[in-house]
Amino acid sequence: MTAKTWAYEDFVEGASLDLGTKLVSAVEIIEFAGEFDAQAMHLDEAAGKASILGGLAASGWHTCAMFMRMLCDAFLLDSTSQGAPGVDQVKWKRPVLAGDLLSGSTTVLAKRLSRSKPRLGLVTMRSELFNQRGEGVFELENTVMFLTREGSA
Amino acid sequence: MTAKTWAYEDFVEGASLDLGTKLVSAVEIIEFAGEFDAQAMHLDEAAGKASILGGLAASGWHTCAMFMRMLCDAFLLDSTSQGAPGVDQVKWKRPVLAGDLLSGSTTVLAKRLSRSKPRLGLVTMRSELFNQRGEGVFELENTVMFLTREGSA
Repeated sequence: MTAKTWAYEDFVEGASLDLGTKLVSAVEIIEFAGEFDAQAMHLDEAAGKASILGGLAASGWHTCAMFMRMLCDAFLLDSTSQGAPGVDQVKWKRPVLAGDLLSGSTTVLAKRLSRSKPRLGLVTMRSELFNQRGEGVFELENTVMFLTREGSA
Repeated sequence: MTAKTWAYEDFVEGASLDLGTKLVSAVEIIEFAGEFDAQAMHLDEAAGKASILGGLAASGWHTCAMFMRMLCDAFLLDSTSQGAPGVDQVKWKRPVLAGDLLSGSTTVLAKRLSRSKPRLGLVTMRSELFNQRGEGVFELENTVMFLTREGSA
């Protein structure tokens, strides 16, 4: 196995990692909604405009999935990640609309080695996404498991 | 607009709603992962078996999306839902593997009318999914906004 750039040791409390950008397209919003969340405001521009979301808006779960892709591309796929047991909190702060350009970052809040598995560490992260106007649209906190360098060697 | 079956008034504290079933296919797991969460254990049977997940396992976000589809089909698409501001907690308790048959329910924990918008109510729900062995694989708590009957008339 090729050594990954990011192991448990490489995460520093207080450090922030850039998540790049993601342009949200109407086609992707409608495709995701058609499969998983077929509420009218996620499928149709007019219905979205008539709703409190104010336009064709991504399903909140689609925003979660787009965030995950940004996290993967930023560092997760080049890490010793072993997955996560869940999510502590997700906030859909503002609608994510067709044409929005998302950007964001992930900040390391805390880290500790597993008590039962010494080659595994737990990294608690807080992530935020913003739209092209700098408005916060999404926040997430969760804890991801990473192998140590020794554990992944 | 056709009247929806489920408005704010129809949710009863303590009542449970059946979410039906969902068969999880390898093709769907790989398709979702390829787009949003391309970690090896979500893309490849052998990599999944070698991981702590023990098989080709759905991305946790895919499980969230499949849950949302079950919720939509069970009652949400036939409701006055106005969306949700976020999620309080998601637990990925056990791996969701290719071939698993998910079932589950949503229980109404609490409800109250919005203080600022009298035609809107907030319903707090706890949802659980189980696999074909009755093992809990997923839990979620969140609060969904529904219009009252009057508000949606």
